[in-house]
Amino acid sequence: MSFTEQSPAHTLAYVQDEQHGISVPVTSISLEDSAPGRANPPLQVYRTAGPGSDPVRGLPPLRESWIAERADCESYQGRSRELLDDGRSAQRRGAASAEWQGPQRTPLRSQPGRTVTQMHYARNGVVTAEMRFVALRENCSVELVRSELAAGRAIIPSNINHPESEPMIIGKAFLVKINANIGNSAITSSIADEVDKLQWATLWGADTVMDLSTGDDIHTTREWIIRNAPVPIGTVPIYQALEKVNGEAHKLTWEIFRDTVIEQCEQGVDYMTIHAGVLLRYVPLTANRVTGIVSRGGAIMAGWCLAHHQENFLYTHFDELCEIFAQYDVAFSLGDGLRPGSTADANDAAQFAELDTLAELTKRAWRYDVQVMVEGPGHVPFHLVRENIERQQELCDGAPFYTLGPLVTDIAPGYDHITSAIGATEIARYGTAMLCYVTPKEHLGLPNKDDVKTGVITYKIAAHAADLAKGHPGARDRDDALSKARFEFRWRDQFSLSLDPATAEAFHDETLPAEPAKTAHFCSMCGPKFCSMRISQDIRDSYGTATEQEEIAGGMAAKSAEFLASGAKVYLPDLVVPQPS
Amino acid sequence: MSFTEQSPAHTLAYVQDEQHGISVPVTSISLEDSAPGRANPPLQVYRTAGPGSDPVRGLPPLRESWIAERADCESYQGRSRELLDDGRSAQRRGAASAEWQGPQRTPLRSQPGRTVTQMHYARNGVVTAEMRFVALRENCSVELVRSELAAGRAIIPSNINHPESEPMIIGKAFLVKINANIGNSAITSSIADEVDKLQWATLWGADTVMDLSTGDDIHTTREWIIRNAPVPIGTVPIYQALEKVNGEAHKLTWEIFRDTVIEQCEQGVDYMTIHAGVLLRYVPLTANRVTGIVSRGGAIMAGWCLAHHQENFLYTHFDELCEIFAQYDVAFSLGDGLRPGSTADANDAAQFAELDTLAELTKRAWRYDVQVMVEGPGHVPFHLVRENIERQQELCDGAPFYTLGPLVTDIAPGYDHITSAIGATEIARYGTAMLCYVTPKEHLGLPNKDDVKTGVITYKIAAHAADLAKGHPGARDRDDALSKARFEFRWRDQFSLSLDPATAEAFHDETLPAEPAKTAHFCSMCGPKFCSMRISQDIRDSYGTATEQEEIAGGMAAKSAEFLASGAKVYLPDLVVPQPS
Repeated sequence: MSFTEQSPAHTLAYVQDEQHGISVPVTSISLEDSAPGRANPPLQVYRTAGPGSDPVRGLPPLRESWIAERADCESYQGRSRELLDDGRSAQRRGAASAEWQGPQRTPLRSQPGRTVTQMHYARNGVVTAEMRFVALRENCSVELVRSELAAGRAIIPSNINHPESEPMIIGKAFLVKINANIGNSAITSSIADEVDKLQWATLWGADTVMDLSTGDDIHTTREWIIRNAPVPIGTVPIYQALEKVNGEAHKLTWEIFRDTVIEQCEQGVDYMTIHAGVLLRYVPLTANRVTGIVSRGGAIMAGWCLAHHQENFLYTHFDELCEIFAQYDVAFSLGDGLRPGSTADANDAAQFAELDTLAELTKRAWRYDVQVMVEGPGHVPFHLVRENIERQQELCDGAPFYTLGPLVTDIAPGYDHITSAIGATEIARYGTAMLCYVTPKEHLGLPNKDDVKTGVITYKIAAHAADLAKGHPGARDRDDALSKARFEFRWRDQFSLSLDPATAEAFHDETLPAEPAKTAHFCSMCGPKFCSMRISQDIRDSYGTATEQEEIAGGMAAKSAEFLASGAKVYLPDLVVPQPS
Repeated sequence: MSFTEQSPAHTLAYVQDEQHGISVPVTSISLEDSAPGRANPPLQVYRTAGPGSDPVRGLPPLRESWIAERADCESYQGRSRELLDDGRSAQRRGAASAEWQGPQRTPLRSQPGRTVTQMHYARNGVVTAEMRFVALRENCSVELVRSELAAGRAIIPSNINHPESEPMIIGKAFLVKINANIGNSAITSSIADEVDKLQWATLWGADTVMDLSTGDDIHTTREWIIRNAPVPIGTVPIYQALEKVNGEAHKLTWEIFRDTVIEQCEQGVDYMTIHAGVLLRYVPLTANRVTGIVSRGGAIMAGWCLAHHQENFLYTHFDELCEIFAQYDVAFSLGDGLRPGSTADANDAAQFAELDTLAELTKRAWRYDVQVMVEGPGHVPFHLVRENIERQQELCDGAPFYTLGPLVTDIAPGYDHITSAIGATEIARYGTAMLCYVTPKEHLGLPNKDDVKTGVITYKIAAHAADLAKGHPGARDRDDALSKARFEFRWRDQFSLSLDPATAEAFHDETLPAEPAKTAHFCSMCGPKFCSMRISQDIRDSYGTATEQEEIAGGMAAKSAEFLASGAKVYLPDLVVPQPS
């Protein structure tokens, strides 16, 4: 099994748009026959793992020719790299700890007077390769993609300096997406660990990854991550900017921040969280909260505002940010710095005041054709979740909502992937476009690799449950395939169709480890004699012998009518479940 | 730490009704001071673990005197114990494998012409000690308890032969309850393991436990469980009846089933799942389902109906069952034998046909003053969950609904505690009274002790989230206490207020193991410099010095007004976060 596949039954395959020369990778899951002569076609599912990469060389630049063909960019001598970009310990050492040695590309930006955002193209009726890729990936029309982008109701995060990324779309008309956070901190972890977590997160289904590093080697870690990322990468640039001023929030300036943003634009960051909605006048609204401000970026900006008695520089310089983002096609992720950190603080004045400002900023960014999504909470009791998405959609004219959970109770540290998946399903059902995962370590520590996997799979569950609830076309195919496999005791197919094949198989084997049990027509819950699935199959057999589900459905209707017409009389001599020999 | 406490900060305490001599056990969680002179009172939380018992001796009979004082029961020579009660291997050996040696009580039943159910008392205006106990436990009025019982909208499962149980109430006006399933199967496990799982499940918060044993020593295992159970015990008697006929469903008879029910009534089972709604004419409705019949009991009864071409004997003898249950105060749990086993089959004709019959049976049981709850699904996509509870409540005149999840997707075997907790929160929010847990092993194998704990805690989350969403009085106290501890960096209190203190502490210690980190004013997510909570506290400090949250709230409103009136001008010289030495 390669590192890019979850199971030996999974292979990389492609869906082709031959006319436009576009190939979208999918994971093909091979299935066993239901019975001799009754084959099950492979199921193709959405794939985030990419083709796989050697970490030291990175991924091939899939989008490079698409970007070049548009002929609206220029390469230029980028901002010069500074040691401080990698933090204070790199300064002491005189170098980052593991310099990127793979392909070095000269940064691109838009030619003067041109705008290179997917929103800009969409609004001008231009269909890009990225849009075609996404339409094929989502199994929808290209026009749906273009029109949703043009209206601001969806984004394709796609920095022209991250040509390795496979385009994906975030918007409520499309499949619900999930983000995984990785990144080192002052306390722990190395560059290799973070690249490993990136690949691990996308293997299990992360649609985007945010690098939230706040420790050493921030610049270099990010370089390694982006060069190996088949998914869009997001960051919170204020974290790095703060490192550059020795962690002292009041020393931050617009100039330092702007320089950090350009540094990250040139590296290829696809979207950036910008806490421009934390206005000076909103800060006192948090003072009598149970948990104050829990967003790191929000707290930094609140601290800065208070220290300087000035309005948030991200707000006052927002138009300049739009101009920069438009040059690279970086998307805004408008940060909710005042999100509630406890259920007691949910949907309060501070939170909703900031949302009003985020709505204003959304429309300002759109004037520059810059793509925007809006971040949301947080900790919200279940009955207050829906209001969050409905208010955001109304105020922000349908701009994609991107939420952290929300967690529906505060009392389960260690299980906050679960408390938050409950809220995430509810909020996604009503239109949230992307869910930021929460791991079991939330509130307690930094996620390790197991935590990343648990977080990603838990959020795949929430996103998929919302897709089903929204009636998204094709979403139920995998459920139906797995349920059919379950009913037919195709154990191996149950495993390979599941979100975590190895875990499903390991759990099965704990009780029934022998290989024959993989083909047994019973399971450990009931044992061989006492199997409800087996009895159901007998019932089905007694009502019809059609071999295909569709034929059974048709045939059974007739059979049932006949049965009822005959006075509901049946006779079966023996329903004992045969024991496997 | 004793086996009955989750944490050294937890102790057994009692809430007293001195007038009536009733003591309700609670878990008291001691808390550290917020600051010198600012103590936090202990938080008392609902407790299911009981006082603790030595497995070989069982629990003291808390309710024995209450039952005796009502003077409406008689003790009698019960049904004689038969070796077949313990299955075929006990027959071969000539004995069960670990006979119960603890207290042996002569069974009780109602005196001729008397009815001993809590519903009967409630309808006749009698307030029992059980009702007082429950009112104290739920922090509500005794009259609410009595009136909900009388209306059939709540039940107190309380077989007079299970005097060890601490009364608890299941109904939508009360806290949402959870059930944990334990029990051996033909494949694995021993009596000691099952008693251990019982104590483990109630330690973590199971409100009732179902013994679903289908393997050897069924009778004896159940005896050990009931004698050690501080919570009501439920069973599915058809499982044992089937063992008595060598696992051959068509050999079942009403007489064998009736005898098994009486055997279990005399042992003290508090509620029994009865699949009386699986009618002959409904069976064909399942034939073209994706997953047929997945309920074991449902499949047995469907098989029996077809084999004999007769109506389900549980339905035709239902009135006799009511007469038996009324003699012991056993509650019906009307089984949903036709529940959907895949999201594709949710809310279909078979499921809702059976629900119509369960509604009819509910009202028949009420004529005998027998307590009833109704079981529900299963696998249901998120948007179809609400219809289940609303339809059940309407058809069954508010009888408590008791659901298994439901699971909102089929694609995550190994994680079905999560897929189902999502559906469980939704269905409980709209009035489901009890949630049957699902463990990570669902569909794959038998839960071990870790799985039982994970299942229970996941369901505590779902139930509690629903209590919060329903605005249940006092439900948020624990959330607020934990959030306040989190904001004040009282790490130990965060751990002890959580649903799983040891896991929360272990996760914290993975990143910051040193003891001083337990009192550090930062955590591993941000590191010492970069702490949003710390910055928030600085903000709060800058807006007021009141020491109590209430005072802060009041004081801050004034401060905020003053701040805004002054032109929203503040000046803080330095917001740098101090590093702990």
